[in-house]
Amino acid sequence: MYTHEFQKRVRYGETDQMGYLYYGHYAQYYEIGRVEMLRSLGLTYKAMEEEYGILMPVVSMQQRFVRPARYDELITIRTTLRQLPAKFIVFQMELFNEAGKLVNGGTVKLCFVEAESGKTVPVPEHLVAELRPYFEEN
Amino acid sequence: MYTHEFQKRVRYGETDQMGYLYYGHYAQYYEIGRVEMLRSLGLTYKAMEEEYGILMPVVSMQQRFVRPARYDELITIRTTLRQLPAKFIVFQMELFNEAGKLVNGGTVKLCFVEAESGKTVPVPEHLVAELRPYFEEN
Amino acid sequence: MYTHEFQKRVRYGETDQMGYLYYGHYAQYYEIGRVEMLRSLGLTYKAMEEEYGILMPVVSMQQRFVRPARYDELITIRTTLRQLPAKFIVFQMELFNEAGKLVNGGTVKLCFVEAESGKTVPVPEHLVAELRPYFEEN
Amino acid sequence: MYTHEFQKRVRYGETDQMGYLYYGHYAQYYEIGRVEMLRSLGLTYKAMEEEYGILMPVVSMQQRFVRPARYDELITIRTTLRQLPAKFIVFQMELFNEAGKLVNGGTVKLCFVEAESGKTVPVPEHLVAELRPYFEEN
Repeated sequence: MYTHEFQKRVRYGETDQMGYLYYGHYAQYYEIGRVEMLRSLGLTYKAMEEEYGILMPVVSMQQRFVRPARYDELITIRTTLRQLPAKFIVFQMELFNEAGKLVNGGTVKLCFVEAESGKTVPVPEHLVAELRPYFEEN
Repeated sequence: MYTHEFQKRVRYGETDQMGYLYYGHYAQYYEIGRVEMLRSLGLTYKAMEEEYGILMPVVSMQQRFVRPARYDELITIRTTLRQLPAKFIVFQMELFNEAGKLVNGGTVKLCFVEAESGKTVPVPEHLVAELRPYFEEN
Repeated sequence: MYTHEFQKRVRYGETDQMGYLYYGHYAQYYEIGRVEMLRSLGLTYKAMEEEYGILMPVVSMQQRFVRPARYDELITIRTTLRQLPAKFIVFQMELFNEAGKLVNGGTVKLCFVEAESGKTVPVPEHLVAELRPYFEEN
Repeated sequence: MYTHEFQKRVRYGETDQMGYLYYGHYAQYYEIGRVEMLRSLGLTYKAMEEEYGILMPVVSMQQRFVRPARYDELITIRTTLRQLPAKFIVFQMELFNEAGKLVNGGTVKLCFVEAESGKTVPVPEHLVAELRPYFEEN
């Protein structure tokens, strides 16, 4: 298992007239969570695209909206990998408000596509290599 | 059952550097689908808030991203109610590209909240009244 | 002079907690205005990129926020070309609410870039050809 | 004069199919710049709304797009007040990329509105009090 936390503040432009973080913006928080998790492993999504020629489109997403997030709150985005990626990579997402209460929980599943051919490929080995130490049985 | 279709064009600002409609923007297409479905019944979400004092926050959402939607494509948003709303209202969503191919499918579940008290309430009767004719058994 | 009008509704996700169309979203309305103006001339920005290999990045923008636009209002986007484009193309923008009152006014200036070389180029001749009849002196 | 810097990374969902930070998203960077400047003075925009009942709608904005900002770049947002606010507050904005090159420059002018009455009011005294030391002549 590998878990990473990152914080992002709710901006005015992200609120709606209910005074809530608009439900459509959580996907961007999910993106930030997984990209910063990769960075914490020494990997960047940018390099994945530019150096390895691999795109990672989203295949599916589930979200539960547990309580509202409000303007200017500093949200903790907790991103967890429960399994080593293979054909897919599945991120478990939990967002907490400043009081430590769960705001939103979900999962997002991505695949790997070779940019040049447009074909689905298995997870790149260099990504698995960074993750493997966290998934070894003791 | 009640089904409604509405069209929206993919705008430049909605694309990402893959050249796809960014996955986080589909939630906005879902919003447009359900709001225009309500309008087709003679109801507006605006009136729900302003006249009836009812907010409709999203409780959960599932999405499958089947194929990319691209810049300037005219997307058909098909919104379907399979059940009369009660405590919740569940919209089935299907998005099609200009070739009639499925781009994205999902469901979104909302509840009803009394703005003044912040309490969850059952579906407002005037909304059920408009929908009931489409759900009567023959 | 060439003028074109197009309508777009203010969506929930575009409002902020003041209940206004968030000021950052007007740029997207400007984009819609100029793209639909081009379409009214039989041109598409998509073809400009794909067939002619020309990108049109924005060089500068000015905006005045005259009165708020609110949720569910149908905004009329009026886009005007006062001069034939040459090195630049300058769109005059006016947005009106349902009562016909000015909500926002501004200008946006774009240049033409050859995608392959990344170099600035003059306005493509096929665009000028479509516009010239509207700018001829009598 | 009072200057403040804050950093924000360009996210995937903010790029467009040119591979640039979409021009419409700069307004959000401007919002972040001015809100974080206020926070550096011990003030929050949230408190301005909730405790003082003052809204700060944007009156006008000018932007020059000097060079593209690209995915994953860490942008430095430099926000400068050149004058003590009175009827208006004017923020000078400069955005720099990781190489220290100017990406975008502009100004944004806001006024102060009493939420309850909807009337324009002068700058709140507590905001001027925090700023005055930085504007005293020597």
